[in-house]
Amino acid sequence: MSGKYLYQTIVDKIAELVDNGTYKPGDRVPSIRELSRQSGVSINTVKVAYEHLEDCCLIEARPQSGYYVSARLPEIPREPEIDETNIIPSQASSCSLVVRIMKDVLVPDKVQFGAAIPDPDLIPGDKLSRILASETRRLKIESTAYAMPPGHHRLRQQIAKWMTKAGCVLNPEKLVVTSGASEAVFLALRAICRPGDTVAISSPIYFNFVQMFEILGLRVIEIPNSPVEGLQIEHLRHALAHNNITCCIAISNFDNPMGNRLSDARKEELVSLLWEAKVPLIEDDINGDLAHDGERPTVAKAWDRHDNVLLCSSFSKTLAPGYRVGWIAPGRFMDAVLHQKIVSNIATASPTQLAIAEFLENGGYAHHLRTICKAYAAKVARMAEAIGTYFPQGTRVTRPEGGFTLWLELAENIDTVALYAMAAQKKITIAPGSLFSTGERYHNCLRLNSACYSEETKWAVEALGEMVHELANSQDNHVKH
Amino acid sequence: MSGKYLYQTIVDKIAELVDNGTYKPGDRVPSIRELSRQSGVSINTVKVAYEHLEDCCLIEARPQSGYYVSARLPEIPREPEIDETNIIPSQASSCSLVVRIMKDVLVPDKVQFGAAIPDPDLIPGDKLSRILASETRRLKIESTAYAMPPGHHRLRQQIAKWMTKAGCVLNPEKLVVTSGASEAVFLALRAICRPGDTVAISSPIYFNFVQMFEILGLRVIEIPNSPVEGLQIEHLRHALAHNNITCCIAISNFDNPMGNRLSDARKEELVSLLWEAKVPLIEDDINGDLAHDGERPTVAKAWDRHDNVLLCSSFSKTLAPGYRVGWIAPGRFMDAVLHQKIVSNIATASPTQLAIAEFLENGGYAHHLRTICKAYAAKVARMAEAIGTYFPQGTRVTRPEGGFTLWLELAENIDTVALYAMAAQKKITIAPGSLFSTGERYHNCLRLNSACYSEETKWAVEALGEMVHELANSQDNHVKH
Repeated sequence: MSGKYLYQTIVDKIAELVDNGTYKPGDRVPSIRELSRQSGVSINTVKVAYEHLEDCCLIEARPQSGYYVSARLPEIPREPEIDETNIIPSQASSCSLVVRIMKDVLVPDKVQFGAAIPDPDLIPGDKLSRILASETRRLKIESTAYAMPPGHHRLRQQIAKWMTKAGCVLNPEKLVVTSGASEAVFLALRAICRPGDTVAISSPIYFNFVQMFEILGLRVIEIPNSPVEGLQIEHLRHALAHNNITCCIAISNFDNPMGNRLSDARKEELVSLLWEAKVPLIEDDINGDLAHDGERPTVAKAWDRHDNVLLCSSFSKTLAPGYRVGWIAPGRFMDAVLHQKIVSNIATASPTQLAIAEFLENGGYAHHLRTICKAYAAKVARMAEAIGTYFPQGTRVTRPEGGFTLWLELAENIDTVALYAMAAQKKITIAPGSLFSTGERYHNCLRLNSACYSEETKWAVEALGEMVHELANSQDNHVKH
Repeated sequence: MSGKYLYQTIVDKIAELVDNGTYKPGDRVPSIRELSRQSGVSINTVKVAYEHLEDCCLIEARPQSGYYVSARLPEIPREPEIDETNIIPSQASSCSLVVRIMKDVLVPDKVQFGAAIPDPDLIPGDKLSRILASETRRLKIESTAYAMPPGHHRLRQQIAKWMTKAGCVLNPEKLVVTSGASEAVFLALRAICRPGDTVAISSPIYFNFVQMFEILGLRVIEIPNSPVEGLQIEHLRHALAHNNITCCIAISNFDNPMGNRLSDARKEELVSLLWEAKVPLIEDDINGDLAHDGERPTVAKAWDRHDNVLLCSSFSKTLAPGYRVGWIAPGRFMDAVLHQKIVSNIATASPTQLAIAEFLENGGYAHHLRTICKAYAAKVARMAEAIGTYFPQGTRVTRPEGGFTLWLELAENIDTVALYAMAAQKKITIAPGSLFSTGERYHNCLRLNSACYSEETKWAVEALGEMVHELANSQDNHVKH
């Protein structure tokens, strides 16, 4: 390469690093000698390049110290910012829409009715931080070493103990710690299914599961999920009789998005029906600890005498989503799930496992739950009231018995992907209904996260109500013309 | 269900929970009222069941307090423990062998020459624990909330800054934090490949990648990896010309298992060859910071002008494997990798991201590296010497310039899966060569983790040497008869 080319490379490289924010104003850049060594370019060439960068006021030399990014960068007007909220077409693929909703969680000034994240004020941040600090100090080696699958032993014991409240006898040796319940379900699907297999699900279903089916190349049979009774077992029986189904996914308590739960009798029926058909059940119990009346319901797994249920849950809704601690009791699929876990990311982070084990044993998890269950019951009720006040007559909304999501059905002619785009402009996020199905269903439905509802965000429900009125009117006009 | 049946259920349930260690001696079991509510069984039935359990001395009542697991459980002789080290057949599938090697990492009294884990004494546990504690206290909300992909911003900035030492300009906005480098590579493969696609790899290759190919249904072309020069680019050129290859995986610095690295010229050639063929390169740089001479080598990504290289790395070898913090710069596959990450487990744990960001900025990462690089250089040299002393003449061993794995080639007639089983009986783990290929290669090779080599574990190298002598003799006798 010619000297001229090398010189330009150095100039471009430093300029790019300043431009993309890696080097910020006041940061030291590599010395001429360092850069010469790293890049294999002669000291002289680097020197000339640095002189040019100084001429451009991008860097400045400080005597006896080296080169630094100029404290005040030359003011070049930036390109106009693109308002990304305008570039979501109604035809947005569900994949890009899910990525957007998840990214929106990062944006602090948005009203988070989209993702089902807990209320930050109901996360025991002080206590968790204290416990995390003391446990990682107490267990320095364990906190830095791999917590190899199945995961930290004390945590698995505490989970097994806790789940006796759900009528469930779990062997700690048959539990695998995962990075959240999503990972647990993803591992379960990968352990059981091959591309082209068919999965029976309750419909509507949590949108991240829909993404999993797409990624894994699975076919789906959607079994209706009644807002009151939950998964319609007669429909499932019919589907099992007429299709080659590889596994079934159900959320038996406080379904996401519907909020309903299966009665004990139905849980038992579900488990025995699937065992007769030799079809494993992936049971998601992520909201099981969030009963509004404080009574911990059973899990379907409690009726599983044949290791045919893979029970999945996490502490993301009750303690801290950022800790990424979930678990799976994979029954007869233990070895396959372990293998999938190791191949995916070897292990779940150790420090947060240690902290949650200690919280379960000595941190007052039961007491914490009593507080938050009451709070979420109130939020769900208040938000449903506000929807009643501000949304058009005829809007339907679920009455969940636990968890914190509400599922709304609007007039048939409303498209909630359009509502998503309108709401985004007012910095409100929602989850459009079409994400909750693999087919063309629920275009006029949406899920709202009531955990982030309060007197301060009530305006956002009012604003959403206005948008729905507006969409309904424009549709009516459209029909009249 | 009859009363008798329910009664037996309660007895069995409590007995199982005591037996599997969920309830330990002295633990409180649910009160009669609680259990009656949870299980839907009448108070009277639970009472009778508890009386029976008391008769069996499994639980005891304490006045005004409830029922507890007896402090001294009745002594029932246990079944004999199965010595699992004897049940590994030579034909063990690579899957079960990998799971075993990973599980062995949990066993504290084993000599860990199998997995490539760092020396626990070279992990800065004190400093990391202090930083983790102070960062989670300082950032209570950030440490408990999702660090949504692409991940914690300050960490991405620090990674981009650090990687300038490798001659690489990374945009922090185009980096995704992952749960270790394994997850980074797994996400990359899933973002690029479909089942049935063909991947070109250097051979031998890290065994977890082989598991990924199997799980994802990928076909593999193994390109020879010279112990000195690294990946043979002429072979790759030939393979590209005659096959429909979807992507290529290479470890350009301090290869696992070989320890070699590509020269800058070869890195540049590799990148341009693959760009011409429009085949993306997944570059694993997990050992890049572990140069024995302390000189940080470049990455192939430094020559990538077309966003065609997906660079993957982590802090698992240099700081703490249990923190599970890795990253990927996915180039033009950014959106697909983000989507795969969200679907897999939504996000990487927040507290460990915060701690590593702080360590990079203010924890003296560069200083820490100088210490450990010297230490690993010495360990590699000492272990190679010990192999020279104790193994049969003709044993070949690599001379790595970085990292801490050694690759050994024994006489053609030695099967290292048999050696694995023999070593397991002496509580020594090794990684048999056959794991490092998708074909029938390397049956007489093995990888050893020198990070756990010291004067205290020298005996284990001597013991392995004796086993190899023994295997060689038994083979010779076999041939003579």
